[in-house]
Order: sequence, then structure tokens, then C-alpha cells
Amino acid sequence: MLEKTPETTVNDTVHPFDRATQVTAVDGRWRGTASEDYFAFVGPFGGATAATMLRAIMVQPERIGDPLSVTVNLCAPVARGTFDLTVRLMKATRSTQHWMVELLQDGEVAAFMTAVFAVRRPSWSHQSATMPEAPPFDTIKPLPDSGIANWVRQYQFRFVEGMPSYSKTPHDVPASAYSRMWLSDTTPRRIDFLSLLSMSDTFFARIFHVRGTIVPIGTVSMTTAFHADAEDLAAEDITMVLGAADANVFHKSFADQTGELWSPSGHLLATTSQTVYFKA
Amino acid sequence: MLEKTPETTVNDTVHPFDRATQVTAVDGRWRGTASEDYFAFVGPFGGATAATMLRAIMVQPERIGDPLSVTVNLCAPVARGTFDLTVRLMKATRSTQHWMVELLQDGEVAAFMTAVFAVRRPSWSHQSATMPEAPPFDTIKPLPDSGIANWVRQYQFRFVEGMPSYSKTPHDVPASAYSRMWLSDTTPRRIDFLSLLSMSDTFFARIFHVRGTIVPIGTVSMTTAFHADAEDLAAEDITMVLGAADANVFHKSFADQTGELWSPSGHLLATTSQTVYFKA
Repeated sequence: MLEKTPETTVNDTVHPFDRATQVTAVDGRWRGTASEDYFAFVGPFGGATAATMLRAIMVQPERIGDPLSVTVNLCAPVARGTFDLTVRLMKATRSTQHWMVELLQDGEVAAFMTAVFAVRRPSWSHQSATMPEAPPFDTIKPLPDSGIANWVRQYQFRFVEGMPSYSKTPHDVPASAYSRMWLSDTTPRRIDFLSLLSMSDTFFARIFHVRGTIVPIGTVSMTTAFHADAEDLAAEDITMVLGAADANVFHKSFADQTGELWSPSGHLLATTSQTVYFKA
Repeated sequence: MLEKTPETTVNDTVHPFDRATQVTAVDGRWRGTASEDYFAFVGPFGGATAATMLRAIMVQPERIGDPLSVTVNLCAPVARGTFDLTVRLMKATRSTQHWMVELLQDGEVAAFMTAVFAVRRPSWSHQSATMPEAPPFDTIKPLPDSGIANWVRQYQFRFVEGMPSYSKTPHDVPASAYSRMWLSDTTPRRIDFLSLLSMSDTFFARIFHVRGTIVPIGTVSMTTAFHADAEDLAAEDITMVLGAADANVFHKSFADQTGELWSPSGHLLATTSQTVYFKA
């Protein structure tokens, strides 16, 4: 009798992103693993960590509706290996839920997330923002694999404006912090809340663009707001988004970063902002 | 012998904002009061509630540095009377701290906050954003007292663009979501982190501007990032900021709102974003 173990089946057929952000129930707690596929320099890519934490909420049987706004605080590098996730429903009303997830390693909090979920009811609808222009996805070549970090290899970046061009010496005059690119999983995967949250963290640090050189950086807190619900995302049925990112202030070792993720059909699916530590 | 009780002294000399956002230690917990002075419709103004929670972190003896990023989730209306605040240091490194505050009434969570604090070290500094134009503060008349809600009376709004003009019937065509105004406490008060956080929530709901009519709304989550530290704010020594607000999407009962708070000298002190429930 020929048998495949469940784990082998999972590893064979599951998208790298779903494998990296998988959670399993162990003794009434949830467990995840810092995936090598999405490793950065001193820990796994924050976007993958955030998506894992969001998944831990999504799988809760009492969860209703879709994420509206998610904030993740990255307190310390997540180490290689497994981590525990404690999930708590802070408060529920009839149509909204407020959740909190803590990511623990060796009993210490390495990251935590708060999230509002809601059943989004029909309403008057209006998009005041306008999609930035971009040539079609297929007409732009993806950035070649730089070999910088594993997680970068999991995405394709097709720059429309603000193509990265980093050297060893910083610019004399700061360049623009703005960039715009088509963004997709290297292995195509339908865009959902988990990938939108992860993609919120894929914009290269704005200080690299402004200074023209790579310096040590780290996201300390990121907030992503979703402007579509699960039904809207299913209707889009897309594997790429147009991402635009900018920054306002670099000061006393911290900078901000703002971002937008657009569907090819012109819907703003998510907006994001983060606070980034930098050394420069 | 003539004596004043401490409470009388406090009420006589303390600014209404400091009175409204006061916290006191009671049996190892912290307690605040939903202030009538800052009441809105179904509960106290969210900005004052947020500032009270941030103050509960600021007064902790082990707190170091200044707030970098603060997220407050407003889960349910805060009722009149007192509330308890539980304050927890989630994780500390040498120069950063991650805090969480829960606001409890009758044992239920009505709001909670997460905040990153840091000792901000000197670094390369650059403001890529440009201050929007505005005539001097003194040349613009404040909005007359509308009597809408107590909290509105605590602030003066001097509109530069997007002056509110609401009627009973909504616009046929959506108007701009953008507005810009000088903003100050009605009783002048030096701008600090607490007032910047509260002012982040003073922008009138964008849907009022876009639809031209007032509809039921409520903030569910707000994130504010600070781009100045305590030393920078002390050096500014100001009692007003220029506030600019906008929105991107109104969809399925929720909208976003973004905001900037500028010092008169042209420094971007804080940026903010929030998710707002609306009925329309």
C-alpha cells in the first residue's frame, strides 16, 4: 500500500507563502515556524511574521467578518525555529471583533498584533483616491534576483518609478522617497488579506532610496488598513498589485513609511504605514 | 486655618485637557474618568480617551524615551464615570519599549492601546514632506461654537481649506475629502505628545465633507506616529498646529482617514491614520 504522510502532501502542493505562514494547534496554543524561505538578515521577513499572526486569527472558529485594520509591533528579532502564538478576543460586538496575538519565543514576546475585524455591510461607496499610472504588469521586467535575502526571492518587483540604485556612498542631495512598482509572488498566488498584509512590508526601506545606499534598518510597528472585504478580493481574482510607497520624515534614528496597494482594475485594496528604525 | 483640598487646587489651576486625561493610582491599578468637558455623543471624545491611555504609560517609572507610534482601538463606547487602566510592558530592549494599555469598565474592555517608545538617538535627518501653505494663525477666525458636542468647544478650528458646510441633504456629486486648518486648544496649552495624539482625532469625519451632511460615525482604530521627540517639542514651544486631513476610500460601512500635524515653523510633528465606521 502506497501512502504519503500528510506533511509531505502539504509540502508538495502548498504555496511557499502558505507554508511559511502556517499555524498549527498544539496543546490549546498555536504554533508557527520562522520560515527559511522568507528569512531576512537577523530574522524572518516581518511581512511573513505578520501574515502568520493574522492567519492565527483567521482560523479561530469564533472569528466573524474580515480584517479592517491590523497593527503589528516587531519588538525583537524572531529566532530560527518555532514560536508560540497566543490569540485573545479582546472585545466583540454584534458585527465587530477586536483581537490580539502575541508571538512568544522562550517565554518572551518577540512580536504582537492587534486587529479589528468586521462584517462589512453594504453602504454608499466612493473612492476619492486615484490610482497612479503604470504600464501593464507584463510590459515591465522584474528586478533580477539580487541574492540579498531569501524573502526578496519570493516576490517579483516590477518598478515603474524609483527603481532601486544603491551604491556604497550616499547621495550628496537626498533623492525622492517615492517609488511605485507592480508586486507579485514569484510563484503566482491569488491576492488575499494575508498576502496584502505581507506585501505591505515589501517596500524597500525609504532611506535606501533617499540616501542611495543600504543602511541597517528595522520595522518597529506597521499598520495596514484594508479597503476591500473577502468578497471584493474574490471578485478581483488577481495575483499582482500596484504598490506605491513614500516617506515624510527621517529624524533621530526613526523614519516613517507609507504605502498603497492597488488592484489592476483601479481599486485601492489596502493602505499601510510603518515606523522604521535606521542607522545613518 | 485656611486649607484647600488637593482636588480643589487641581481643578482650579489645571488645564481642562490635563484634568480630562488625568490618571490616578488606585490599589496598584490606574484609574481615569470620562470627562464631561470632552464628551461627544455616545461617549467621551476618542482623542481624550487615547491621551488618557498614553498618559498612563508616560507616568510609569520604568518608561524610557518618547512615544514613536501609538495605536488605539476603540471597541465600545466608554460610559460616563470612571474606568480602570491596566498597563503592561510587553517587551523592552536597551532603547525601545513596547507597551499595552487596556481600558476596562465593568470588567469589559472598552478600548486598548499599543505603543512603541524609544530613546531617539542623533542621526542623519531629512524631511521629505513639504508643509502645505496657510495664512498665519492669527489672520483666520476660528469656527464659531456650533454647540454640537462638548469636546468641539475645547478646540479652536481655523479653516484654510475645506471649511465645513453641512446641510440636511447630501451632495449629488461627492466633494473633496481634503481639509486643512489651524488647530489649538481653546484655552492655549503647549503642544506635547498627549495633545498631538488627541488632536489626531479632531478632524471632522471625512464623510461629512464628502457627502456635505452629518451621518452616524465612529472611529474603530487610530494610529499616530510622532516625528519629534520631547526635546524637539520643547524647542517648538507652540500652542497650535496646522492640521491637514484626507481620505481614500468609503466602502461597505468603513472609511479611512489620514492626517498630518505641522508646527508653524514647518516641522511635521505627527502623522495619523484611522478606520472609521459610517452609516450612509
